[in-house]
Amino acid sequence: MHFFSSNFKLGILGGGQLGKMLLYETRKWDVYTKVMDASPEAPCKIACNEFVEGSLMDFDAVYNFGKDVDVLTIEIENVNLDAMEKLEQEGKIVYPPTKALRIIQNKANQKLFYTDNQIPTAPFSRFAYTSEIEDSLSNGGLQLPFVWKSAQFGYDGQGVKVVRTKEDLKDLPNVECIAEQMVDFKNELAVIVARSPNGETKTYPVVEMEFHPEANQVEYVICPGRIEDSVAKKAIEVALKVSKNLQHVGLLAVELFQTQDDQILVNEVAPRPHNSGHYSIEASYTNQFEQHIRAILGLPLGKTESKVAGVMVNLVGKEGYTGDVVYENIDTILDMEGVTPHIYGKKQTRPFRKMGHVTIVDEDMTRARQMAQKVKETINVISK
Amino acid sequence: MHFFSSNFKLGILGGGQLGKMLLYETRKWDVYTKVMDASPEAPCKIACNEFVEGSLMDFDAVYNFGKDVDVLTIEIENVNLDAMEKLEQEGKIVYPPTKALRIIQNKANQKLFYTDNQIPTAPFSRFAYTSEIEDSLSNGGLQLPFVWKSAQFGYDGQGVKVVRTKEDLKDLPNVECIAEQMVDFKNELAVIVARSPNGETKTYPVVEMEFHPEANQVEYVICPGRIEDSVAKKAIEVALKVSKNLQHVGLLAVELFQTQDDQILVNEVAPRPHNSGHYSIEASYTNQFEQHIRAILGLPLGKTESKVAGVMVNLVGKEGYTGDVVYENIDTILDMEGVTPHIYGKKQTRPFRKMGHVTIVDEDMTRARQMAQKVKETINVISK
Repeated sequence: MHFFSSNFKLGILGGGQLGKMLLYETRKWDVYTKVMDASPEAPCKIACNEFVEGSLMDFDAVYNFGKDVDVLTIEIENVNLDAMEKLEQEGKIVYPPTKALRIIQNKANQKLFYTDNQIPTAPFSRFAYTSEIEDSLSNGGLQLPFVWKSAQFGYDGQGVKVVRTKEDLKDLPNVECIAEQMVDFKNELAVIVARSPNGETKTYPVVEMEFHPEANQVEYVICPGRIEDSVAKKAIEVALKVSKNLQHVGLLAVELFQTQDDQILVNEVAPRPHNSGHYSIEASYTNQFEQHIRAILGLPLGKTESKVAGVMVNLVGKEGYTGDVVYENIDTILDMEGVTPHIYGKKQTRPFRKMGHVTIVDEDMTRARQMAQKVKETINVISK
Repeated sequence: MHFFSSNFKLGILGGGQLGKMLLYETRKWDVYTKVMDASPEAPCKIACNEFVEGSLMDFDAVYNFGKDVDVLTIEIENVNLDAMEKLEQEGKIVYPPTKALRIIQNKANQKLFYTDNQIPTAPFSRFAYTSEIEDSLSNGGLQLPFVWKSAQFGYDGQGVKVVRTKEDLKDLPNVECIAEQMVDFKNELAVIVARSPNGETKTYPVVEMEFHPEANQVEYVICPGRIEDSVAKKAIEVALKVSKNLQHVGLLAVELFQTQDDQILVNEVAPRPHNSGHYSIEASYTNQFEQHIRAILGLPLGKTESKVAGVMVNLVGKEGYTGDVVYENIDTILDMEGVTPHIYGKKQTRPFRKMGHVTIVDEDMTRARQMAQKVKETINVISK
């Protein structure tokens, strides 16, 4: 059914900020949308045609929601896959496909997928429980330091910890996990790949990411990344290999490490619009949200090139402030050329909470990067 | 009160397509919005925080609506000005100000305003009733042909007619009107001026408009207009003079004629986002909707320059088709680079009804213009 048909419904699992930005694009084309989220306060609630309150991890809730829509997609990976698989088996269009989601949803499966498909990634060990790690350290099967990652439900720096001593293991939940060798990297990069149901793919330029050292959250995303062409080429090749082997439909954000000797290793992937692509709203010919919609509706993919250089700054709650949010100096940054704040509308701030992002665009990357620094130094997400 | 304050409400009179595009920008900044429109099917209904059904021409409806918001704006000029004036007198922030709206709402007043302020415009006569025109023709006070315009409620080609013979007068409503001398023009141009409460102004580049000869609707808007610098400079000067004398706040779209001898005459103005600025969503650093919001909220104005060349094509219902709309070949135009359709979501098409628009952007204006032609030739707004 074409999305212009009067009965067409697009279903989105998850009603968060990514979903809200997806919904702007569906409005542009008057696509009828239905969203499910567990929270009656979900940001998507006022931007969709129909809203259903329900748990994304509940089989019945997801299954019944899916039955009522024509195309089902996600804005977050943590959804009930058994329900999605059943819908798929019954002929429902589910993008990304359940098979790809199942690989991605569990970080241990994701890592095994990379090694099975000869996709370069950091060496790792898999553990059924965190408590098994100590034995492995004792018998020499694993060396300190390493990166501990919970296999399930990792998001936004949650479920990831650098373990430098045995002591560091104490606070970790006793769950299925991986221990990944630390990568000595020059840069963290990302490539967004869009893929259609017919296998057509387009890649966005390689972006460079700078992380906040303490919060493990992206601080700047820079497009195009200031890297050598040969490195960019390799990054795109690796991202396309992941895409091809995953057989996803929609976007795939591939996070990569560029090592000191210019190897490209896959860190992890997300099968949806991603923080590393927010710059595209202001900088690209086709923004990542429109592109995801194009892909899952089987429409031709849009041009992924940039009109101008873009730098994205995440707006996170400042340390030491918890409570009703205030965006100090937002008027000052609105007075800088090419600066667009996006405010997510969360009423409460707390240290490092993601409250919004700001995109800075300019014909000249050096100017955009300088302006981003100024934005970062000027705006403060604090409490009253 | 700053728009981030938890109790802040922005009120918008009119819930049509322009309002809907305004609302995308308020969502970006999480501005709380309340919209009033007479139609329960208004496009804005699903994109605002609060929706009120009510007539925009009804004193009580507008007054009560205005009392409940902190800043009141419009997306259409035909609103009850007495109610807005009362709100203004009571200290409510009303942008555009009622004084400017009163001048603009009545086309005879608008023309008098131009002559009073030495702003170049086509010569005209004012009539209390269309029936008085015949006398004026008989006694030689007026010559055929001329452009008849209803003083009130002109919109989208309604209320405007070229009168070439006395016969042409027969079908016209017997209302307050003007008879305007026909202008022998080379080009129709437009300049959008943004103006803050403190009098700061910024102008968008001069755009060139091509009208559909039969429907009297804009067919292409081209930014930047392919005109000489001296003409562009004069157009901007005239637009700024209108802006300064009107003392509006928010956007002012100034439609202009470039005559055969390169004079610039003001045709008419609109104190709000305008069809001639739709290209800005894809082409400009700050799109016109965000700019209107910035201005009326007293925020710094954004950069008005373009990232890339833009051409906008209006999507109007094809002649000979009335009924449930079909966008024939929309997938084909989605496959062209830099092409973004905007579909307004009207379910029924009829000849020349405005159903959406398509923006074409490219680094190169010649390519953008060629692509726009191709878009125009490809997509058809027809019925089932």
